[in-house]
Amino acid sequence: MRNQLNIWVVGGDMRQVKLAEALADDGHGVHTFALEQSGEELPGRQENGLDGVALADCVVLPLPVEGEGGLLNAPLSHRPHPLPEVLDALQPGQIVCAGRVTDGVRALAEERGLTIHDYFAREELAVANAVPTAEGALQIAMEELPVTLHGARVLVLGYGRVGRATAGRFAALGARVSVAARKYADLAWAEAAGHGVEHIGELSGWLCGYDLLVNTVPARVLGEKELAELRKGCLVIDLASRPGGVDFEAAAQLGVKAIWALSLPGKVAPVTSGRYIRDTIYNILRELGV
Amino acid sequence: MRNQLNIWVVGGDMRQVKLAEALADDGHGVHTFALEQSGEELPGRQENGLDGVALADCVVLPLPVEGEGGLLNAPLSHRPHPLPEVLDALQPGQIVCAGRVTDGVRALAEERGLTIHDYFAREELAVANAVPTAEGALQIAMEELPVTLHGARVLVLGYGRVGRATAGRFAALGARVSVAARKYADLAWAEAAGHGVEHIGELSGWLCGYDLLVNTVPARVLGEKELAELRKGCLVIDLASRPGGVDFEAAAQLGVKAIWALSLPGKVAPVTSGRYIRDTIYNILRELGV
Amino acid sequence: MRNQLNIWVVGGDMRQVKLAEALADDGHGVHTFALEQSGEELPGRQENGLDGVALADCVVLPLPVEGEGGLLNAPLSHRPHPLPEVLDALQPGQIVCAGRVTDGVRALAEERGLTIHDYFAREELAVANAVPTAEGALQIAMEELPVTLHGARVLVLGYGRVGRATAGRFAALGARVSVAARKYADLAWAEAAGHGVEHIGELSGWLCGYDLLVNTVPARVLGEKELAELRKGCLVIDLASRPGGVDFEAAAQLGVKAIWALSLPGKVAPVTSGRYIRDTIYNILRELGV
Amino acid sequence: MRNQLNIWVVGGDMRQVKLAEALADDGHGVHTFALEQSGEELPGRQENGLDGVALADCVVLPLPVEGEGGLLNAPLSHRPHPLPEVLDALQPGQIVCAGRVTDGVRALAEERGLTIHDYFAREELAVANAVPTAEGALQIAMEELPVTLHGARVLVLGYGRVGRATAGRFAALGARVSVAARKYADLAWAEAAGHGVEHIGELSGWLCGYDLLVNTVPARVLGEKELAELRKGCLVIDLASRPGGVDFEAAAQLGVKAIWALSLPGKVAPVTSGRYIRDTIYNILRELGV
Repeated sequence: MRNQLNIWVVGGDMRQVKLAEALADDGHGVHTFALEQSGEELPGRQENGLDGVALADCVVLPLPVEGEGGLLNAPLSHRPHPLPEVLDALQPGQIVCAGRVTDGVRALAEERGLTIHDYFAREELAVANAVPTAEGALQIAMEELPVTLHGARVLVLGYGRVGRATAGRFAALGARVSVAARKYADLAWAEAAGHGVEHIGELSGWLCGYDLLVNTVPARVLGEKELAELRKGCLVIDLASRPGGVDFEAAAQLGVKAIWALSLPGKVAPVTSGRYIRDTIYNILRELGV
Repeated sequence: MRNQLNIWVVGGDMRQVKLAEALADDGHGVHTFALEQSGEELPGRQENGLDGVALADCVVLPLPVEGEGGLLNAPLSHRPHPLPEVLDALQPGQIVCAGRVTDGVRALAEERGLTIHDYFAREELAVANAVPTAEGALQIAMEELPVTLHGARVLVLGYGRVGRATAGRFAALGARVSVAARKYADLAWAEAAGHGVEHIGELSGWLCGYDLLVNTVPARVLGEKELAELRKGCLVIDLASRPGGVDFEAAAQLGVKAIWALSLPGKVAPVTSGRYIRDTIYNILRELGV
Repeated sequence: MRNQLNIWVVGGDMRQVKLAEALADDGHGVHTFALEQSGEELPGRQENGLDGVALADCVVLPLPVEGEGGLLNAPLSHRPHPLPEVLDALQPGQIVCAGRVTDGVRALAEERGLTIHDYFAREELAVANAVPTAEGALQIAMEELPVTLHGARVLVLGYGRVGRATAGRFAALGARVSVAARKYADLAWAEAAGHGVEHIGELSGWLCGYDLLVNTVPARVLGEKELAELRKGCLVIDLASRPGGVDFEAAAQLGVKAIWALSLPGKVAPVTSGRYIRDTIYNILRELGV
Repeated sequence: MRNQLNIWVVGGDMRQVKLAEALADDGHGVHTFALEQSGEELPGRQENGLDGVALADCVVLPLPVEGEGGLLNAPLSHRPHPLPEVLDALQPGQIVCAGRVTDGVRALAEERGLTIHDYFAREELAVANAVPTAEGALQIAMEELPVTLHGARVLVLGYGRVGRATAGRFAALGARVSVAARKYADLAWAEAAGHGVEHIGELSGWLCGYDLLVNTVPARVLGEKELAELRKGCLVIDLASRPGGVDFEAAAQLGVKAIWALSLPGKVAPVTSGRYIRDTIYNILRELGV
């Protein structure tokens, strides 16, 4: 990858702010736009809109790229920025990176001769993001539970990226962790990591033994029947993206405290999340031979 | 230890409430007094004062035993209970346990032919309490820092009970932990645990490398000079009991965020803390041949 | 899965012996054949050949199933057992499990109306076997190195199943572990696990910093050029199956000690390996609805 | 401590050889004597006896200092060196360090106006040595047991320096570790570290549940009665110094494999052990203001 690139960071939340700072710290020429209310001293803050963006070696749009109503996702800007306007300012063939790119946005880009590289779709970012997600789960558990995590009985549902990072961290703090998964190979991984294992289809009858359930499966695994089995005071944290894995209505009726914790990386660790995005952008650029 | 003891739990905070519940769960006959506003269903709640307390096999007073103005420490009671009155109700020779017993309280007890066993002075409780204290430090760090603990550079000052529990937990979550201590043996312990080590008298010049400092030494180790060296955004958590180890005034002037976190076990994990007190009471009773 | 199955264990090494014992401990009716020189008291030892094997609910052949010259792999038998003979004794449609089934063996089976289920091809067994493999690597490193693993600088090449299990265990013992891999996602996993990371294509120039290299990549990653860079006394352990990842000839000429450690699970932990095979057989039977 | 000291290393085993190398690597002027058969290129090897030793800033004698028959412990020398002769060559007031200094040796030294600093008596060396001792126990367990340490049920007796290092390492590899100790505070430490706990006086009836016992208590804790309770195949490793904690005669009669593993640091990790001695010598010199 070349050393001193001209990079624009356009829109987004604190992660994008921290991304811009990290890029500048690495010596790149950074321009920022639509982040002006961040409260931080932004590198290369642009007062005059997107003038000059067409010269950028790389333009980084936010995660998710799209806000409500076809606008750029720009909660730190004092005014709305329609996505078509932003894309109009770019140069056909330019390298554009963005997160959670929908079909609609992709179509808008293609009309303008732009190919968007979705950094959020990259495996290495998903793996990296599992760490702050797991730390967020630890934090919520510590804040909510009247017992120490040390010695607490924790069931982690699902053993993909987030399940692994989460189960490992609870166990590292002395919790007695079991993992529920469907695939034999995942159960073997969990066992190799020293966790207890349960088949996720056969949870009923065992759920009363836990102080905490952490779900990572984006499918309804904790319905009314399962929630009814929990012991009094058992906490449920759902880390799964929509539609989530918990019947929250049933939980409310049963008096089970259930917390749906979405998008933890940006909330609990914006600086680290910004660095992860930077690393992923660099990987994209390396692959493109920049 | 005998199986079904008659135990009174008198005064205190949620830890005492949870202690009473844990004792009752173990099958003991439990009476509770001066805890009536806990919001929990108390086992053996006494409406008529301390009548009958003289028959108890063991009376457990709170931690600390003394509140302001010579009163029993009873924040969950709707009325004040002067300590002399409480002690008057007890029987000479009765087994009385209490926490942080001052000379004044000990004298009051001795006047009445009572020997108080200070459970807070016991090594095993101090060791056990290091766990929730360390978890409390993790929680504060997670809440305050914009980076993940994973990869964060953390310096733990002091390597006694709390220092060990704290350093180990940060390292278990992937932080790069160094320990500063004075004694060569403590430094050898820290090294055997895989931490980096610094001599606590030679910190100057190295402090700029950390994202977080956690102090456990109850002596002024972080004065103005040391605090001035910290990098922008470095957080300081002081876990040391009075007088603490941080010059908080200097920290405020320098714009260093410093948090003095005292008495974490009762705050972050009252249920676990209650169980620790129960275990310690049992040890005392065993040693007394009850 | 049904409770009391009739299972034959035919041929193999100590893992098969331990598998038979584990199956018998679980209450199954076990028959063993071609294991008679194991030195252990075998459950259901058959003196009269394979009479009755056609009645078995499941027949378990060894790992690998084939020895030299078309024989059943039966190092613990006092006489040779041609594979065709063994298969002739089975019943078309019978459930037959075996390990490392070659095309030749599969053809022999199909001619006889038998479908062989290759338990060694199952992901969960491969994951489980990573644990004894990693322990074997630890043992070799401890036996060979004049330094403690604590504090040793270790490079693990490859971050698949064996790489993960190995890197994690060395780190757990206090080694300073770096991982070299090719895929960004694998590097992200290694970083999330707290290891240092190197791109496997850019090792040259960095290799002099290690006390130990553990290779898990089955491709020539450590050629003469790389081996020449190692510091004096650096040990190389190759865990990769054929063709391995180390130029052993170059290592010998350069005076680099390089150990090719194959098939560790059966060597270092035959009892555990036998149990893993049992668990995998159970999974196969469950999937077949037995 | 001064930078370029004149240090003599006299007698000892491979640890002393590695100590000399480490001192030379640090830039000191090193002279070695009575190590001539080590097979290594010794720094500053003296052919003409102890001529010049009186000029040394520090003279390091071996660990233990005394061999059989009043000789210097010098297994790597081709001839005997009576200790009085060695001490005669030194200068009154000179700094002399040695390991395991007996009263007899101390008296010999004092007659000559020499004060010997016993580095082996220092807490930091004992703590450091717990690491290679624990690794040695791991290695023996791996070599002897037919199961993986992962999942093995291990009881560690005693929770001092070696007990802590050992229990922690077995647990880190996935063993299910319990600790037996006498003091409540030690049991609390073990519990805080996540281990199961047993009171060492109440082991009878529970010993059948283990695959491995590791003793660190230098008192007969495993007599005939306890050994008779072990399950078939349970391994016993005794790390305690004389008189040890195991009735080896009873073990032999009962068919229990029991291994008395003494002086592991020098055997399993002479390089690391030599570095530990160096660090301890430096601490002594620092305290003496050299």
